[in-house]
Amino acid sequence: MGHAAAEAAVRAGLTLVPFSYGGPTESGRAVDVGGVQVTLVHPDEKLDVLHRVREEYPGTVMVDYTLPSVVNGNATFYSENSVPFVMGTTGGDRDKIMREATESGVYAVIAPNMGKQIVALQTMLELMAAQFPGCLSGYTLRVVESHQATKADASGTAIANIHSFQRMGLEFDLSNIELVREAAEQIGRMQVPEDALNGHAFHTYTVTSPDGSVTLEFKHNVVGRRVYAEGTVDAALFLASKIGEGAEKRLYNMVDVLSGGNMRS
Amino acid sequence: MGHAAAEAAVRAGLTLVPFSYGGPTESGRAVDVGGVQVTLVHPDEKLDVLHRVREEYPGTVMVDYTLPSVVNGNATFYSENSVPFVMGTTGGDRDKIMREATESGVYAVIAPNMGKQIVALQTMLELMAAQFPGCLSGYTLRVVESHQATKADASGTAIANIHSFQRMGLEFDLSNIELVREAAEQIGRMQVPEDALNGHAFHTYTVTSPDGSVTLEFKHNVVGRRVYAEGTVDAALFLASKIGEGAEKRLYNMVDVLSGGNMRS
Repeated sequence: MGHAAAEAAVRAGLTLVPFSYGGPTESGRAVDVGGVQVTLVHPDEKLDVLHRVREEYPGTVMVDYTLPSVVNGNATFYSENSVPFVMGTTGGDRDKIMREATESGVYAVIAPNMGKQIVALQTMLELMAAQFPGCLSGYTLRVVESHQATKADASGTAIANIHSFQRMGLEFDLSNIELVREAAEQIGRMQVPEDALNGHAFHTYTVTSPDGSVTLEFKHNVVGRRVYAEGTVDAALFLASKIGEGAEKRLYNMVDVLSGGNMRS
Repeated sequence: MGHAAAEAAVRAGLTLVPFSYGGPTESGRAVDVGGVQVTLVHPDEKLDVLHRVREEYPGTVMVDYTLPSVVNGNATFYSENSVPFVMGTTGGDRDKIMREATESGVYAVIAPNMGKQIVALQTMLELMAAQFPGCLSGYTLRVVESHQATKADASGTAIANIHSFQRMGLEFDLSNIELVREAAEQIGRMQVPEDALNGHAFHTYTVTSPDGSVTLEFKHNVVGRRVYAEGTVDAALFLASKIGEGAEKRLYNMVDVLSGGNMRS
């Protein structure tokens, strides 16, 4: 995902800093990202490279797509060294990330889902639940989602949306989410393009009135990673502008980025 | 529509007042509504019957589903005589209706669409547009709607929703709404049940990212009139409770009814 985000940054015409923090085994290697040779930096050299980047690339925003196992160490490093960061990595001790960032006063966008259009829909359902509790009471909900075959559990986004529907009055047990994981069903039933079987997130929520006369349906279908990569660039641009204006608020999420009225598609 | 609303009131266990204002030619006739014989009242007897109803059925809420040609006269009558009313009739001089109701201080719910679940979705899209302007900029919108063959123009609900999408950054010309009016296409493409060809409102809004990797889809499909009839009863119950508590606010719409957290399905 880090690679896709870096490519999106190059596509957006931003300067991609030619360094990326890597694990000990891959350090020194260079990776081509849209024509920019990005050198992977050994963990021991993190601070040295940071100083150099600060000098040569003032205004740098760090983008973090790593692993749950290292996300807390990274967040501590950014917070302690005041490195503005966009964190798309999920997992780890989230409370600790938020606490350290808040206490250090570092500028950061921390969001487990950078797909801003998906976040917009999710927020919209939350607003509907908050404003119209019980508006769908008595109705029934059906949720079908399709992801690559290796994904065993249900989508976090689906679960968040279901919680909103529950607040609108729908009774739904999370065990009733239909997980589509087989190629034939993905292509036939969900209409996933064949070349996206290994990377997609298709969700359908169908709400039906007791007598069947009313149906509401919501879909959010994503192929590949581009929407998340583009949203990451939006988040970085948003953060840079907040730093530029010396905003008092330092810690943001994707709803803040969206509310900022960012016009990039 | 008035008949369907009256049936819904009987289904909800409410007392249906056995009088309905009618035109001069049909007066005196009785109509069966769920076992209640409702007598159509001649225009000359409107005020007499109102006095009688007030005595025999205190707490009556008037429901108005008439025609654009008489809606203003009716609204004036309700306002002048302080008859609490739920107005689902569309057309007429809307400003005049609102002005007279406001000035008279009569309790009223005035809403051109009583389908509360549909109104909830519509309001949600408005909220999304207000909160996240431009969040779908660069995306494309496709709108397909199917109604009975006799409906020539595009649906007002579709137009209202498109305005919300436009505020989210989508460029869309209203002339590009695809109006499905032929039976074969309604059944095949839109999946309208065959027995609903003469009374349905099916809407699909599809939003796609520039590279096609993200699709959001929203559908609201209604067969028959039951959802509007049920919403009318919700509105009447809501208004009765507002009158009961002597609420300061007198004039409401369907968003108010929804925000009231009404739990009937």
